[in-house]
Amino acid sequence: MKRILAAETTSKIGEEITLCGFVNARRDHGKIVFIDLRDNSGVVQVVFFDAKNAKELRPEWVLKIKGIVKKRPEELINPDLPTGEVEVEVKEFYVLSKSKELPFDMTAGELKVSLPTLLDFRPLTLRHPKIKAIFKVQETIIACFRKSLKSQGFTEIQAPAIVPSATEGGAEVFKINYFEKEAFLAQSPQLYKQIMVGVFEKVFTLAHAYRAEPSITTRHLTEYLSLDAEMGFICSYEDIMDTVEKVMRDIFSGIKENNSSELSLFGIKLPNISSKIPRIKLRDAQEIIFERTGRDNRDELDLEPEDEREICRYSLEKYGSDLIFITHFPTKKRPFYTYPDPEDPRYTLSFDLLGKGLEWVTGGQRINDYDKLIENIKKWGNKPEDFEMYLQAFKYGMPPEGGFAIGVERVTAQILGLGNVREASLFPRDMERIDLRLLKKEKESKQDE
Amino acid sequence: MKRILAAETTSKIGEEITLCGFVNARRDHGKIVFIDLRDNSGVVQVVFFDAKNAKELRPEWVLKIKGIVKKRPEELINPDLPTGEVEVEVKEFYVLSKSKELPFDMTAGELKVSLPTLLDFRPLTLRHPKIKAIFKVQETIIACFRKSLKSQGFTEIQAPAIVPSATEGGAEVFKINYFEKEAFLAQSPQLYKQIMVGVFEKVFTLAHAYRAEPSITTRHLTEYLSLDAEMGFICSYEDIMDTVEKVMRDIFSGIKENNSSELSLFGIKLPNISSKIPRIKLRDAQEIIFERTGRDNRDELDLEPEDEREICRYSLEKYGSDLIFITHFPTKKRPFYTYPDPEDPRYTLSFDLLGKGLEWVTGGQRINDYDKLIENIKKWGNKPEDFEMYLQAFKYGMPPEGGFAIGVERVTAQILGLGNVREASLFPRDMERIDLRLLKKEKESKQDE
Repeated sequence: MKRILAAETTSKIGEEITLCGFVNARRDHGKIVFIDLRDNSGVVQVVFFDAKNAKELRPEWVLKIKGIVKKRPEELINPDLPTGEVEVEVKEFYVLSKSKELPFDMTAGELKVSLPTLLDFRPLTLRHPKIKAIFKVQETIIACFRKSLKSQGFTEIQAPAIVPSATEGGAEVFKINYFEKEAFLAQSPQLYKQIMVGVFEKVFTLAHAYRAEPSITTRHLTEYLSLDAEMGFICSYEDIMDTVEKVMRDIFSGIKENNSSELSLFGIKLPNISSKIPRIKLRDAQEIIFERTGRDNRDELDLEPEDEREICRYSLEKYGSDLIFITHFPTKKRPFYTYPDPEDPRYTLSFDLLGKGLEWVTGGQRINDYDKLIENIKKWGNKPEDFEMYLQAFKYGMPPEGGFAIGVERVTAQILGLGNVREASLFPRDMERIDLRLLKKEKESKQDE
Repeated sequence: MKRILAAETTSKIGEEITLCGFVNARRDHGKIVFIDLRDNSGVVQVVFFDAKNAKELRPEWVLKIKGIVKKRPEELINPDLPTGEVEVEVKEFYVLSKSKELPFDMTAGELKVSLPTLLDFRPLTLRHPKIKAIFKVQETIIACFRKSLKSQGFTEIQAPAIVPSATEGGAEVFKINYFEKEAFLAQSPQLYKQIMVGVFEKVFTLAHAYRAEPSITTRHLTEYLSLDAEMGFICSYEDIMDTVEKVMRDIFSGIKENNSSELSLFGIKLPNISSKIPRIKLRDAQEIIFERTGRDNRDELDLEPEDEREICRYSLEKYGSDLIFITHFPTKKRPFYTYPDPEDPRYTLSFDLLGKGLEWVTGGQRINDYDKLIENIKKWGNKPEDFEMYLQAFKYGMPPEGGFAIGVERVTAQILGLGNVREASLFPRDMERIDLRLLKKEKESKQDE
């Protein structure tokens, strides 16, 4: 008999059905045992009228059950459960897999464990509905990014992660032993997506990006997901922000459409976007912050975290927008390929999109002139030889172009109000952890010896 | 004025339009100069009636053109060009970017360069319509894989590429210097997708996979794209093949729908699939090969390349199918997690899908019993401690499950009849090449010193 899902039981009242799933919780009532059976669609209550049949069953055991869907009496309906109006009377069942005893209780609405425990037991904690929900929302963010850009004429590309030289900021790069030679892990797909503008004009990719960040913060991972886009034949860097704006709107409406139950688990609402996301220059933002707080950072090259939060508050108050573009960052603070503002080359045609006090997206127009790029590569202390393939794309003609990148884990965490970006990565890597804590691993291997 | 694409010109006869694109070719006819202007949609002929205006223009220069779309006289229509019935009379134009002289001719239907040149000048060669077509088809393969599995209830996940231990075949793994500790590049997302079956039941991902393959073949890359899927609550390993079959059909129909022009550039037809792809056991295949050719490899643990070609010929002759599943590979030849056939544990419930004489897909049922997995890890010469997080997924209950992986570049190359898998990778990496040839790079850096 074909298996049905827990969520489908409400439409099968009176029918004999087959269910498969995990034991989520067990409640003993004398001779009767109730089991909450969990599958990918949710939870449904199944009833064993002969307790001795169910006496072995424990959380996370995997069962196949044949039974009859019964409507619960009015007074026993559980209004908090989507399947709360029914239960399944077990006729036969098979144990597909047993579980060892769990290290902590998985049945509460909130999984009350510390961050290290959350990550040390990832295969288990990811099964908790509220943890799992994070990655349903993340799936939507990624899918909507792709769908939005495809609908705008972009082509999806795949950029390599093994690269020949440390291109953007030499220190924070991972080295690979490549057949007795040296290679590196890409810090972003930047150079490749730019090359591909010469081929497909408008491109996007989901890339793994690597930063050998030698510190533990709540905002950084050593391996993270980057949604990258790049577009040619732009008339102005404003075209890029228009595209970012469209993508963010499409992501939010995708989440609204597909993830209402996940959002309600977190009890949060999606950020407000005004009819047009405000765009202000860094120097103007600093002036506003000075006026509002008396904090004089008007000569700084970037916004401090407290300035980012302040300008987001301003945006919400003045424009009703949780998101705000800050533009025209100083040339010194941006990579060599950033296009200088023709009106004042100390600044660039670049932008960050801030949301809820943090950077969500970064982007800008790029220099598309071959000679100017070579000059800048030298000025930034790099060697043009290390950029030979990248430079070819400009040597052989490149339209005016620019693009942007969205940090997937960070945006997921921001939308759901998570305190640490690690919570928005299935298997987060940082300086001290690859799956398990590296320190722990080291200690154990010492014990082995 | 809003830019239109080359392909749109045929519906704008008599209108003033703006075009942007690359100079694809230039033909001088006395006072008149014809330029084939190329954009992402194709090529259209533009006419400069005053040759001196166009005298500087060279291949790959990037132009913005204002002009009038004219219908060509009947005798000048070019039936080989989709826009061949029109041309654009140039009124004004702007040079957006210049190009240096090209190292080879880009205008022929076939790009006649050697493989090293093809790859050394990748930013340029990728612009050739027939090279570019490869990656349009590849984009479709990836998109259809995702769409097919989403429609079958799978969830998209993202697996990390930095891993804590060399898990599947110790030798061919790249080491990373990870904050003075050792880490590795994942050879596949295998362990993570299996873990995620405990969370979402059915999952898929597009992963970068890394093999430190110390040889140069036409079939191997050191970094390649793997379309991976894994599904729980299977009734039999045949369920996995059913899913593969559905995915392959969806990929082929997607290509048919989206890439007819790319297919015609290659002059190829898609592989035939019979109503059901034949499934035969390895031992039976070897018997058939012996009967057909007299080649007695009936005791071998795998098919030799010539055997793979022979069994594909057999499949086409007997079943009208370019694709064939070979099942029940010997336990010794498969990874530790492969499910043994209960009827004969010397063999496994595993399969390869062969197409046109080469492996396209590999998959099988996995062992989902915790104790049995630990036993096998030891038997295969590995340490259970190195699999601690993976093993948790089974310690805490895992349904019967299995999955498969598709090598993207290989399948792209096979479908289009390319001779070398490198041609189906935007920026192929092998033992001797990361973008440019490593040998060349070494020589140059020696010259620098």
